Order: sequence, then structure tokens, then C-alpha cells
Amino acid sequence: MNYNLNTTLLLISTSLNILFLLFVILIISRKGGIFYIKNKILTIGKKNIQNNLNINSYYKHKKSQFEILPRSNDYIVFLGDSITDEGEWVELLGNSNIVNRGISGDTTRRILNRLDAIVRIKPKQIFIMVGINDFVNEKKSIEEVLSQYKIILEELQAQTPQTQVFLQSVLPVNNNLTYIFEDNQKLIQFNSRLQKLAAQFNYQYIDVFSSLADAENQLDARYTTDGLHLNGKAYLVWKDVVKKYVALTFSSVYKEENSLYN
Amino acid sequence: MNYNLNTTLLLISTSLNILFLLFVILIISRKGGIFYIKNKILTIGKKNIQNNLNINSYYKHKKSQFEILPRSNDYIVFLGDSITDEGEWVELLGNSNIVNRGISGDTTRRILNRLDAIVRIKPKQIFIMVGINDFVNEKKSIEEVLSQYKIILEELQAQTPQTQVFLQSVLPVNNNLTYIFEDNQKLIQFNSRLQKLAAQFNYQYIDVFSSLADAENQLDARYTTDGLHLNGKAYLVWKDVVKKYVALTFSSVYKEENSLYN
Repeated sequence: MNYNLNTTLLLISTSLNILFLLFVILIISRKGGIFYIKNKILTIGKKNIQNNLNINSYYKHKKSQFEILPRSNDYIVFLGDSITDEGEWVELLGNSNIVNRGISGDTTRRILNRLDAIVRIKPKQIFIMVGINDFVNEKKSIEEVLSQYKIILEELQAQTPQTQVFLQSVLPVNNNLTYIFEDNQKLIQFNSRLQKLAAQFNYQYIDVFSSLADAENQLDARYTTDGLHLNGKAYLVWKDVVKKYVALTFSSVYKEENSLYN
Repeated sequence: MNYNLNTTLLLISTSLNILFLLFVILIISRKGGIFYIKNKILTIGKKNIQNNLNINSYYKHKKSQFEILPRSNDYIVFLGDSITDEGEWVELLGNSNIVNRGISGDTTRRILNRLDAIVRIKPKQIFIMVGINDFVNEKKSIEEVLSQYKIILEELQAQTPQTQVFLQSVLPVNNNLTYIFEDNQKLIQFNSRLQKLAAQFNYQYIDVFSSLADAENQLDARYTTDGLHLNGKAYLVWKDVVKKYVALTFSSVYKEENSLYN
């Protein structure tokens, strides 16, 4: 009796084992088979995550577009990651000299990897905001991000010394909506170091963080759906913070003056 | 002996099953727990996929931004999905009246859901390209996509009759790189129907497909990394196709004339 029960149980249990195994094989094959496993193994460990630029098609396509677009010394470059990428800066600021050089997912290292196409413009101004993905995706320390950031600034100062460079603070995230960090203390510390770095280079530091944070230093829930990216209202706030630094064009002066009469 | 072996095997087998079960629970909880399962169940079946607008944070954020940006009747709107979204149209065409109203992932239904913010502009021109995600993500038939497309056009004609509307063909994909379709015949048929639809509304149809296709009607591998989205070279080709339809601005005429002397 006990013997038969054991045999039956064994049969059920091993059948379940086989089913589970088939399920895992199915999932892996749907995700790309042996290449998926190979890729997973290659990206195991912090060191590998750190060294992987994680360059996807979107990055490649945008980078190649940025490399072939016309250039002008009048350009005002907005350089950064997804939150720069997603802003309609020309429209927000009513300034047709602005060009968007944001790429979703960018880190300091990914920007360094495409800085040539920015430097070559020798633009009038650059507004840079980057760093959050270094922390979120690459698990970097503040020191590591700052040392990469410094290389970007050194490149800019050496290659396009006439350009006015503005270092924008990274923005708060909302950890109730995203669970990225325990709190935003690391971001606050990073911004404080960034301000000092800007001073070393005689570049202007712009605090956008404070204007988008709530009383608990979280990204205000009014400004986001996912806790990380920004809605229209948030871009209006950001626009108001940077507005006074953005060089006016003939057309923006014209619009500004005429809007007084509207 | 046999009895003991059975017991041992049973122990191993049930342990493995428990491990597998814990693993599945871990994966599900990392993906969002009970909400993930609920959502998966809700999206099972073609009907549900079709009815789900699949609106993500990116869509919500962009839509809310589009709703608060300034409006002008001089605007030239590029309306569509990711491949419109990713183009730097102002720079490509040297025309500061252009505004980008592309949202990655958009379908005819997702565009209908945000058409108010387009219609409200009452722009000079609209260049629309949409449909590929209806086929790829929603598994729609040509008839289904066309009937949605027609509603968009009816809305435009009714709400902003002064606007010149241009229907751009959908682009080929490269099925060697993406494995989306067996071939691009469905897209070619769709474009042919789109051309007729444009004629019904007295709108201009623009064939961009042919300029980006290779001899096998695949998206030319020179123009893409992933078989679906476009690199810089492709945008230059696309730009050359639409250029003659885009209304000139004072500044673009000025630039064009001056470039003759460069």
C-alpha cells in the first residue's frame, strides 16, 4: 500500500518536474533561446552591468541621425536622457535655435560615446541633465558618476570653449510610484557635488530638483504617472526654471514683445 | 531497496517541484504580483488585445504635454508613431513651423484618442503616418485599420477643414531582421487602399515606402538596425520625399536662398 502510494506520488511528482522543465524551455526559447541565456550570463555581476553601455537600436538610430543633421553655432543644445528626450523644448521655450539631443536611457558613459556629434556643433549653449540612469541601471556610486561627468565637461571645455554650459541637477524620482531608491538622499548628495563640479569649470549650475520635489523630496505626484518621467505640467515648471538662462533669438524676442499686446 | 530508492527519488522530485514553484512565485512577484496575473488574464485572446489601447506612461506624459503646448495656425504637424516621433523634423527640413506629434507605439486608435490636441491647433498642414502598429501589436486586418483611419480623416475634415492633410504610406519593415511578417504584401495592399482613401477626401497621398524599400520590398538594410525603426540616412531619404509638400516659412525660404551662395 505504502509502496504503491509512493510510486503513484513519484509518478505525479516527476510528471510535474517534466512539465515545469518544458515550461522553462518554452519561456527561454520564446525569449531568444541560447542567445538569451548567453546574454544573461554575460551580464551577471555588477562589473559587467557597469561596463555594458547597453546600446540599443534606439540609441544607434538617434546617434546616427544626430551625426548627419545640419549644424549651427546658434544652436542651443538640450543634452540628456529620456526626460530631456521627451521634452518639446522648441515649443516650450518658443525658441527655434533649440535642438534636442536627449536619448532615452542615456548615462554619462553613453553621452561620452556620442559627444563628438555635440562638440562638432560648437553650439552657443548646452543644457545638460544626466546621471539618474547611472544610478538606476548601472548601480554606480556618486564618485563613479562624477568622474564620468567630469570627463564630459573636460571634453566640452577643450573642444568647444566658447559654448556656455549649464549643469542641470538630476530630478527627484517618486519612490512611492517606482521603488527605485529607499529615498532620494543619494540624488540630493549627487546634486550638491554637481554644483561644486560646475563651479570648478566656471559653468552655471541650475537647480531643477527643488521645483519638482514635494515636501518629502519626492518627485511631486502631480508631475508624473510612473514616478520617473514627466507630464506636461512638469515640463512647464522645468521650462520656467531654465528660461532665464536660454539665449534669446530674434524670433523669441519678437514673440515675447508681441505677446505683451495680446 | 526499491522502496528506499523510490522514497529518495520522491524526495528529490518534490523538492525540485517546490523549488520550481518558489521560482515561479518569485518571478511573478517581481513582475508585479497579482496585478501582473490579472493583467495577463485580461489581455488573453485576440479580442482583448484589439480592444486594449495599451496606453503606457510615455503616451500619457506626451499626450499631456501636447495638450498644454502653445498653438499656432502656422504649425506643420508630423503625426504618427515611433518613426515619426524619432525624427528631428525641424532640423531635417530646416523649418521651424514643424511640430512633432509622434508617439512611440501609436496606432490609429491611440491617435484618435488624442486627436483633440491636434485638431485644436488648426494647423496649416498635417503629415500623418500610422498603421504599422495596428498590424504588429493589435493583429488588425486591413479593413479594420482603414475604418479607424477613415474616422481620423473625417474628424480632421470636419474640425479643421482649412488644414492640408497628407497621408504618408506606411514604411516597409525588414523581415530578415524582425520576423514580423512573412513578407510585406499586407503593407503594400494597405498602402494601395490608403491612396484611394486619400483621394476620397481630396487629400494628398505620399509614397515613402518605395524610397526606403530594397528590390525585395523589404526595408533596405542600409536604413535600419532593428528592421523596423530608422537611422539618420533613412530620415534624409524620407525628408527628400516630403520636402516639396512642406509649406515654406520665411526663415526656410531665407535659408534656401542663402544656401545657393554657399
